[in-house]
Amino acid sequence: MMVQAQFFTSDEAEPVVVENPLGKGRVLLVCEHASHTLPARFGTLGLSEDVRKSHIAWDPGALAVTRLLSASLDATVIYQNYSRLIYDCNRPPESPSAMPATSEIYDIPGNADLSEAERFARTAALYIPFQTRVSELVANRNDVVLVTVHSFTPVYHGKRRDVEIGLLHDTDARLVDAMLNHTEGGDFQVERNEPYGPEDGVTHTLRLHALPNGLLNVMIEVRNDLIQNEEGQRAAAGFLSELLTKAIAAHSP
Amino acid sequence: MMVQAQFFTSDEAEPVVVENPLGKGRVLLVCEHASHTLPARFGTLGLSEDVRKSHIAWDPGALAVTRLLSASLDATVIYQNYSRLIYDCNRPPESPSAMPATSEIYDIPGNADLSEAERFARTAALYIPFQTRVSELVANRNDVVLVTVHSFTPVYHGKRRDVEIGLLHDTDARLVDAMLNHTEGGDFQVERNEPYGPEDGVTHTLRLHALPNGLLNVMIEVRNDLIQNEEGQRAAAGFLSELLTKAIAAHSP
Repeated sequence: MMVQAQFFTSDEAEPVVVENPLGKGRVLLVCEHASHTLPARFGTLGLSEDVRKSHIAWDPGALAVTRLLSASLDATVIYQNYSRLIYDCNRPPESPSAMPATSEIYDIPGNADLSEAERFARTAALYIPFQTRVSELVANRNDVVLVTVHSFTPVYHGKRRDVEIGLLHDTDARLVDAMLNHTEGGDFQVERNEPYGPEDGVTHTLRLHALPNGLLNVMIEVRNDLIQNEEGQRAAAGFLSELLTKAIAAHSP
Repeated sequence: MMVQAQFFTSDEAEPVVVENPLGKGRVLLVCEHASHTLPARFGTLGLSEDVRKSHIAWDPGALAVTRLLSASLDATVIYQNYSRLIYDCNRPPESPSAMPATSEIYDIPGNADLSEAERFARTAALYIPFQTRVSELVANRNDVVLVTVHSFTPVYHGKRRDVEIGLLHDTDARLVDAMLNHTEGGDFQVERNEPYGPEDGVTHTLRLHALPNGLLNVMIEVRNDLIQNEEGQRAAAGFLSELLTKAIAAHSP
């Protein structure tokens, strides 16, 4: 497609990646913020390397946890191969944070005053193919449980966050309710709709695919200092895998 | 594509139509509001038949004039096969009039409180393929002159409009300036940026394709009472064809 051919150089990776497409588990794992990679045409966006690899560009550790969950649940994974600084696939085009000019304490020079042509190119190249592919994965399988996997920064606007795992939902709380029945005595401090929630516009992927189709769903947020290394990632994925398995069983006939 | 398969029934026409794809003229004619057809899944949108066929749903006469221009200029045509009430392809997704809940004096019940899933479906099925195809047509040809063809209602919010043809431009006025050099003594009352202009957000297609690529461009608006029948359409197309030919010649080496 022309737009994509102009958007990516010929040796750049595809924006949408699906792993374990034939997985037999009911869970579909979605990782919108898997990568901090910027397509070559964007250069640095005017940001230092540190910032380009910080939590404003991606969710550190989220893809690793997603892959471990995929292995234990035999779940299909879909992730976005490029940074949310170019397009945040968990936001609709009308959201100011879809192509953010600022994020937390950072101005993003390469995103200032975007033209309509630039907004169109990013929407067409990154957002539409990603969420269209999620639609296809949902439509091709019966009884999907939609699980999106994210990480959050332990310090935001200078404030420390104590919650370790957030289980977020929109108007359908069925799966989160069931998960919260099994968190007591566990290794993680788990909260509902923390450190932010649907009122912050973060449940877009759930609204696109889970709510209209009546799918059990949860948006998982793990504090990123806990999943910096493989040991932490394994601990979080093990805990979440058990929690999801119990909660899904509670909703099965 | 899944989204499209769900959006249209299997016997509905494609949303994007290209005519005379091998036309040798420099002009590319774009008609975003060619049709008042609603895809079957939308029913009536809660509107009477009169309103569904009124100027809020499409630009009456615009496609007929476009086709006459195509014949005389040997120009490629691209048009949208569905009503702008579902998605107005001359608006970005963040514009309130892309999927309007009201238009002129009418509420549009079927567009009230659209979910994010519904907005995504319309954007993916109608807007993205249309403007992507325009991109491809521009990219495949040298030296394109981008001409969008519209019609406007003679009475808007109860007020009569005297202008007969509007020549609209955004920041690049080159072609319109040259066209206005040849309108005196002609059969039509022609005005620059009337009955509305770029400040009303109507130059989206020009902003997407003409401005970033430095293409000569104009958005033509014809008062729709003048192009209700073939005679009127021929008169308008003949006048515009001559005007475009002279103006393009003035810009050619």
